[in-house]
Formats: sequence, structure tokens, C-alpha cells
Amino acid sequence: MRVIELKESITASNDRDADALREEMRIEGTLLVNLMSSPGSGKTTLLSRIIEDLGGEWKIAVLEADIDAQVDAERMEEKGARSIQVHTDGMCHMDAGMTRTGLREMGTEGIDLAFLENVGNLICPAEFDTGAGKNVMLLSVPEGDDKPLKYPLMFMKSDVLVITKTDTMPAFDFDLVRCTERVRRLNPDIRIFPVSAKTGEGMADLENWLVTAVRDWKAGL
Amino acid sequence: MRVIELKESITASNDRDADALREEMRIEGTLLVNLMSSPGSGKTTLLSRIIEDLGGEWKIAVLEADIDAQVDAERMEEKGARSIQVHTDGMCHMDAGMTRTGLREMGTEGIDLAFLENVGNLICPAEFDTGAGKNVMLLSVPEGDDKPLKYPLMFMKSDVLVITKTDTMPAFDFDLVRCTERVRRLNPDIRIFPVSAKTGEGMADLENWLVTAVRDWKAGL
Repeated sequence: MRVIELKESITASNDRDADALREEMRIEGTLLVNLMSSPGSGKTTLLSRIIEDLGGEWKIAVLEADIDAQVDAERMEEKGARSIQVHTDGMCHMDAGMTRTGLREMGTEGIDLAFLENVGNLICPAEFDTGAGKNVMLLSVPEGDDKPLKYPLMFMKSDVLVITKTDTMPAFDFDLVRCTERVRRLNPDIRIFPVSAKTGEGMADLENWLVTAVRDWKAGL
Repeated sequence: MRVIELKESITASNDRDADALREEMRIEGTLLVNLMSSPGSGKTTLLSRIIEDLGGEWKIAVLEADIDAQVDAERMEEKGARSIQVHTDGMCHMDAGMTRTGLREMGTEGIDLAFLENVGNLICPAEFDTGAGKNVMLLSVPEGDDKPLKYPLMFMKSDVLVITKTDTMPAFDFDLVRCTERVRRLNPDIRIFPVSAKTGEGMADLENWLVTAVRDWKAGL
């Protein structure tokens, strides 16, 4: 397991870089999924579960972006996924250039599904297109159903919202209907999957969506 | 309740601005506490409890910084605290200039204890001195005990760590001893208070610390 240190790309054209990377990944047949959320909302645990469930069918890789530490990439390798840890030099997000560097260092040949586990942050990552084919955000039940009101851009930029840790609903005052209404007001097309990676509740629906997304990506849809 | 829209201060000298604001607050006898954490770690609920418990003894005000919404400032006013909502124009943190503008708009005459509820973000707010007399961070039990490994700067910059939502310990795999060791390795002098604003557990110790901090601030200590 390697750790690489990145600096912010010196480019005024992140959007162009992102489009170019998306096109490269399309040609390679690798779907890159950008996973965004607050710190501690369960990205790594969700990924562990997905790798367990889909790792037989698809070749999966994980690019772990953090300011420091390498615990997440180690967990991914234990699960049998190719993984690399990227350190962002204190940066609060990943851009397309950093993502490309990480993917090239890790290698994506033969990979069907690559996850970028973005820096834990509900704000900055929403402002930078990474070149991913799909943007997926997590909101955990303990964070509360008012987050769409406070961090609207992230909800607007995401193709999918995964509401995590649903097994802890009894311990928190989280109203799923109210949350869904708030999210749909920002983004009517977003897909919403409430899941518990711990109990497995809701995982099948999310994984069916992922499997279809990979197939469509490879088919150029 | 007013809402003001802020832009980032055009200044290369945030540290100097911060020192100047701190000196002004010292002369006024108002302790400014900068409250930082991830989204959804319980800053607003903790503040509600503190205002209930200490609002008879001290005059408390709250500067609520968010990218959008004004639900938090409304909650603070319901509790009887002076409050103003600041919108950060998409910015992921508050700097000293933005903090001064917010405080001056709100007014701090006669206020003993002013809280800045910073933008929910474990990264960027640690990089900008706001001019606060004390920096307090929250880490909630659901976020996990590995956060000091991933977001070290925030733990290094804080005078106090409040571990919130301790009533949910049974639902999560959070090791308080391991967390404390990780934090102390980054910051040996930090004060750590595990609390539940819901049950009241641990609140007395935290509030005693706050009362002493206000007294010391007014005495010029």
C-alpha cells in the first residue's frame, strides 16, 4: 500500500481537465464514482460492504483522499480491492488533476469500478469537478435532516444521496420524509438510498443501481 | 433576527486582524469562543443547553455562520440569546474580518460570552484565526475515534475538545481512551470534556470551565 503526497494542480481550467479525465475513463471502461460526505458519515464502511458484495462480479479500486493517515486504504486492501492513499497537503478537496495523478499512480487497467473517497467535507468538494462519471454523497442519520438547508450545493451536485447509518434512527430525531422533501427541492432528479452498511438494510437497492451504472458506463450510455 | 451576507475579507494579514479583534474584545470584557466541528456534530444543541444553564448568570450572544439557512439563529433567539445569522457566500470558514463584521452588526455591548458557531467543517476553519479568545472543537461519537488521525490540524489548534452525543456510545464503536490518546499525541495541553447535551452528562464540567474562562478573560488573565 503506497501513500502519495499531492499539491493542488496549477490550472485555471479544472472543468476542462475533468471532462478530459471523464473521457479517458470512458474509453478505459472504468466508472469513476466520487464519494463525498462530512467526516465520519461512513464512507469507508459503506465501501467495505460494497467491495464484499460486488467484488466477485466487478474489479473494484479505491482512491483514498485524506489530509493525513492511511487507515482507510489499509482497510480497503484488507477487503481485496486495489487501493492507494492520497494525501492532499492540507487541501479540503480533490480536483481533476489530483484525481488523475492518483488514478495513474494506482493504475486502473482492468478496473470496472473505481471509487474516489474524497476528503471528508460537505462544502469544498462540491465546488470541484473531479472528472468522475457519477457523484454520490452520503448523509448519515446522526448528522440530522437539516443538512440540505445548510449545505445546498453538495445536494445539488450529486447524482445519488445515500442516507447512512439508518440502524441508528431510534437514537436520533431524523425525519426521513422531511429530509427527502428538502433534498428534492434542491435536486428533483437525485436518487436517494437509505442504507445501513451494518445490518445490510437497503444495500441491495444501492448495489443494483451501481451495477446498472457500471454496465451503462461500459456501454457508452 | 437579521441575516447578513459576507464576502471574504480582502486582507493579506488575517493574523494581525485577529490579534486586533482579540484585543478589542478583551477591552470590552467579552470572551469570544470559536466553536468548530463537522456538520451535524451538535454545536447548536450544545449551545442551546449552555444558554439555558448559564444564561441567568452571564449575558450570552451567538454569531451563527452558515453557507445558507437561518434555522440556528432562530433557535438561539428562542433560547433568549442575542443572535445574528451570517452567510459566508459559499466560503468554507470564517476569518477575522468576517467575524468582526458579524460581531459589530450584532452588537456585543454588555455581552459576557459570545460564541461564533463556525461553518460545519473539520478542515478550513482550523487554518484561519478568527480573533477568538478560545478555540473549542466538537467531535461527536457517531463520527468515530479515528478523526484525530485524519484531521490533525483542528485538534492541534483547539484549546478544548468537547466529545458530544456520549449517550449514543452503545450504538457506535467509539473508544474514548483510544481517542483521548490520539488527541493528546497531537496536543498535550488540550482539555477534553465528554458530554451529552441531551441527558446533561458531563455538562457541569464543561460549564465550569466556561465560567472560569469568562472570569479569567474579564480579569485580563
